[in-house]
Amino acid sequence: MISRGFDNAECEARTKRAQEKLASQDLAGLLLMTEPDIRYFTGFHTLFWQSPTRPWFLFVPQTGKPIAIIPEIGAALMAQSWIDDIRCWSAPTPDDDGLSLLYDLLSPIEARGQKIGMLKGHETSLRMPLQDFETLCARLPNLILEDATEIVRSLRVVKTPAEIEKLRHICAIGSASFADVPNFIEKGMPLEEVFRQFRITALGHGADDVPYLVGAAGQGGYVDVISPPSRRPLQDGDILMLDTGATWDGYFCDFDRNFAIGSADDEAKRAYDVLWQATQAGLEAAKPGNSCADLFHAMAKITKQIDPTGGDIGRFGHGLGMQLTEQPSHAAFDHRIIEQGMVLTLEPSLSYGNGHMMVHEENILITDTGAELLTTRASETLPIICT
Amino acid sequence: MISRGFDNAECEARTKRAQEKLASQDLAGLLLMTEPDIRYFTGFHTLFWQSPTRPWFLFVPQTGKPIAIIPEIGAALMAQSWIDDIRCWSAPTPDDDGLSLLYDLLSPIEARGQKIGMLKGHETSLRMPLQDFETLCARLPNLILEDATEIVRSLRVVKTPAEIEKLRHICAIGSASFADVPNFIEKGMPLEEVFRQFRITALGHGADDVPYLVGAAGQGGYVDVISPPSRRPLQDGDILMLDTGATWDGYFCDFDRNFAIGSADDEAKRAYDVLWQATQAGLEAAKPGNSCADLFHAMAKITKQIDPTGGDIGRFGHGLGMQLTEQPSHAAFDHRIIEQGMVLTLEPSLSYGNGHMMVHEENILITDTGAELLTTRASETLPIICT
Repeated sequence: MISRGFDNAECEARTKRAQEKLASQDLAGLLLMTEPDIRYFTGFHTLFWQSPTRPWFLFVPQTGKPIAIIPEIGAALMAQSWIDDIRCWSAPTPDDDGLSLLYDLLSPIEARGQKIGMLKGHETSLRMPLQDFETLCARLPNLILEDATEIVRSLRVVKTPAEIEKLRHICAIGSASFADVPNFIEKGMPLEEVFRQFRITALGHGADDVPYLVGAAGQGGYVDVISPPSRRPLQDGDILMLDTGATWDGYFCDFDRNFAIGSADDEAKRAYDVLWQATQAGLEAAKPGNSCADLFHAMAKITKQIDPTGGDIGRFGHGLGMQLTEQPSHAAFDHRIIEQGMVLTLEPSLSYGNGHMMVHEENILITDTGAELLTTRASETLPIICT
Repeated sequence: MISRGFDNAECEARTKRAQEKLASQDLAGLLLMTEPDIRYFTGFHTLFWQSPTRPWFLFVPQTGKPIAIIPEIGAALMAQSWIDDIRCWSAPTPDDDGLSLLYDLLSPIEARGQKIGMLKGHETSLRMPLQDFETLCARLPNLILEDATEIVRSLRVVKTPAEIEKLRHICAIGSASFADVPNFIEKGMPLEEVFRQFRITALGHGADDVPYLVGAAGQGGYVDVISPPSRRPLQDGDILMLDTGATWDGYFCDFDRNFAIGSADDEAKRAYDVLWQATQAGLEAAKPGNSCADLFHAMAKITKQIDPTGGDIGRFGHGLGMQLTEQPSHAAFDHRIIEQGMVLTLEPSLSYGNGHMMVHEENILITDTGAELLTTRASETLPIICT
């Protein structure tokens, strides 16, 4: 049985690797405030981040253990981690939500003329009130806050064996759930009920949760891939797409499947076939040494048979882990080299017919020589169900 | 049957109310970038925000319809809303993720010497890369960005009838789910399985999703209220607490229930009784004209019978709506006056015995004269199940 959580030794090893990079960039430390980044170095795992009320901070110094500056409500759970120095305040306290504690920690660093790193780059956000951040900067006018996004990203893009084990597990649960779709879907079922039954099915197969489930259904195809469910009943001739991010122990699968309800026209079958072949091209290109851009171009070469635009989604897949989508991006702009241990999605998409679009997605692990599917490969031809 | 979504007229009315406040504060517009705030004015509802990759923007001008500046992947869904002016880019584009479009929109405002509002205050965050925000500010050096948190908050704290209908619905689903707990729980069941069965039960009762579920179980009581599930089996003498945020059509219930497994000691029974009475005092104090601080003190007066500290959570409840927790806070610092149409939680907590803590929570609607329970009131005495 797979363990929940991570050994302290793993969190410590991750921290040491970050600290080597901090040293090489002459940064006194790294100030973090987002859930996956704090979890990465501490193992601190809670859904409580869904409440926007309280900020949370972790400071990773260039040497020694990280320091947690967190609301008192999290102290008991953080005390179970490998972190010893846990500084708390009774949050919320709108006029001082961690600021004094941050000031006390950072002002000696400022006084020494040292720099610290923060996550300021692509795909990051500032998870504290902007006003509080401005106040902190005004109180520490000489503190240099450099972007350190690449330090954290370069670690997180390559998964550890313990992370891969969790990702493999949730991808298998997702695959088993999609295999069950023909067993619970019927014509006339409203889309909201399809979504509900999918979630129940995934939980039944062992998912902890299904935080992400979007999809669409329409005659001959769908036009949107990020909608919540409507009450429209499934009809003969619909193409149904479900895209799920299910989780186990805080790790996501992220893939979709297409189904034709009762029957399918040739345009939809052709779109499916081209996307399947594009994914196949992606699978062959997904190996150490190639770049994410190479992966994109390998897939785009195939999708161009129908759609020269490259679609609305902006990329053909991405990294996968603690977040539904992580760095890197399979896009022409992303020249990151693929490495063993990356867990990626392959997600070509295209427009076809009368304004329809179609997406396909698989989840893969990069091995020393190529790609291993973590998902059960989609059927080679468009599955027609409820016949 | 309750409708999904909102009429365009409702989104328009919300916008007009915000625009009156913008005018009175001499703001040319309001720049939004967080999910619930954009949803509030547009009806745009998708789980795709879980992907951190792309920023999304909505600009509410002082007059006229809001302008959406969003990734192309969202264009089809946004086009179903009442928004006409939808400006898209192929995202992700790390070196220009919406910045040029924002610049084009805001530079005429800067040139006119006008100010705009942003959400910079308590409980907000900057959902775009800090580096991009700094670049935008550098390109618009004379644009004044004022905090407008209170404009949006003062609208969102009082729910509309259509919002109340959704909240009433999901609270009823949550109540039905908790009523089923004794039917699926048994001694020896690992906590992860308790969580899974609770989610399946809530979906079966009609929830769209159960994004938030935390809880704990321990002999004579629990020590933490934000943990993910462990594999520890339920044992005779455990106190089990489950706290859920289930959703329907993007609106949350948020409440918890306590159960004694097989038996309970007098300390736990006493803690439960005091908390039940504290909630009762909160129910009586929850009426228009009283403040959130009044509500806090009414409950604290009772919890002090056991615990003079006020607990680790920092407040005794909060607002409820599109987010698991919303403004206001039932805390000594929050002097907001309670108004008809607010939907609130009452959530007293206390420490007792040997380091244990206990929480209680109900969800209420403020009426013209008092409070109406949206949740089925917790049993007056600690329920002992699996006997």
